[in-house]
Amino acid sequence: MKLIVAIVQDKDSTRLSNSLIDADIRATKLSTTGGFLRAGNTTFLIGIDEARLDETLEIIKKSSQKREQFMTPPINLDSPMEVTHTYPIEVQVGGATVFILPIDSFYHF
Amino acid sequence: MKLIVAIVQDKDSTRLSNSLIDADIRATKLSTTGGFLRAGNTTFLIGIDEARLDETLEIIKKSSQKREQFMTPPINLDSPMEVTHTYPIEVQVGGATVFILPIDSFYHF
Amino acid sequence: MKLIVAIVQDKDSTRLSNSLIDADIRATKLSTTGGFLRAGNTTFLIGIDEARLDETLEIIKKSSQKREQFMTPPINLDSPMEVTHTYPIEVQVGGATVFILPIDSFYHF
Ligand code: NI
Ligand code: NI
Ligand code: NI
Repeated sequence: MKLIVAIVQDKDSTRLSNSLIDADIRATKLSTTGGFLRAGNTTFLIGIDEARLDETLEIIKKSSQKREQFMTPPINLDSPMEVTHTYPIEVQVGGATVFILPIDSFYHF
Repeated sequence: MKLIVAIVQDKDSTRLSNSLIDADIRATKLSTTGGFLRAGNTTFLIGIDEARLDETLEIIKKSSQKREQFMTPPINLDSPMEVTHTYPIEVQVGGATVFILPIDSFYHF
Repeated sequence: MKLIVAIVQDKDSTRLSNSLIDADIRATKLSTTGGFLRAGNTTFLIGIDEARLDETLEIIKKSSQKREQFMTPPINLDSPMEVTHTYPIEVQVGGATVFILPIDSFYHF
């Protein structure tokens, strides 16, 4: 048994929740109050048997790893005539920080 | 010194808080944003000397373990005449998930 | 790599956040729902290389350790004429509880 502490962006939180449910892996989600360095993230606590550790890491990675995304920049309202000059740009989203903690013992009451 | 991470249902949170206060055991409570598998729970962080570990586990168990509870099902408003047919039913409530984590060191500033 | 779990009073939370940013140390902040023994605190999760552990502890200590502070007691509205008898008194504020947890492994996706 290990305790996984996984911090992901809020935007990936629902996807990760759903993927864990699909895999029948229990998790507890902790809210963050404006994490100052990575605003808007969610911390997952996941107790997992070592036999399923790699699988769980793979789920976290698939659900939340850093990736490029195309985003259309907001229209400049000061010069609406230039709208046609707006191109989608690539931005980086996602990213997860994951700690695997050893545990001395585990109880389920 | 160990770090106890205990996840209990919200409905048992106040009782556990009070029992820990009675035993003079310090705890920090973390809120959860709709834990997706066990909606509405509270995570307790408790730093505890190993000498008091068993006692603390016993307090957690007594305050929040799974148990049967009788609950009267809500009245069916569509057919109020059948109210007399409503019997209390047994439902399962409570339950705690507890991790005991080793710590390298502990500071109190 | 270690995982620091640091619990500080809300009033010291912004100062600690800023000091960590200045030192280029990443942290995740968890909100607490009325920690019952130390109402209004914030829990910081900080993954840190062992080489920077002492430095980080020093930052936490400087930002949040227990200290005396002079506070002017509120004016007694029942006898406003006695305002001149109000002296600043010394109160204790701050304080941090810090756990250093070993980690088995660490991932950044
Ligand atoms: Ni990152
Ligand atoms: Ni359970
Ligand atoms: Ni203290």
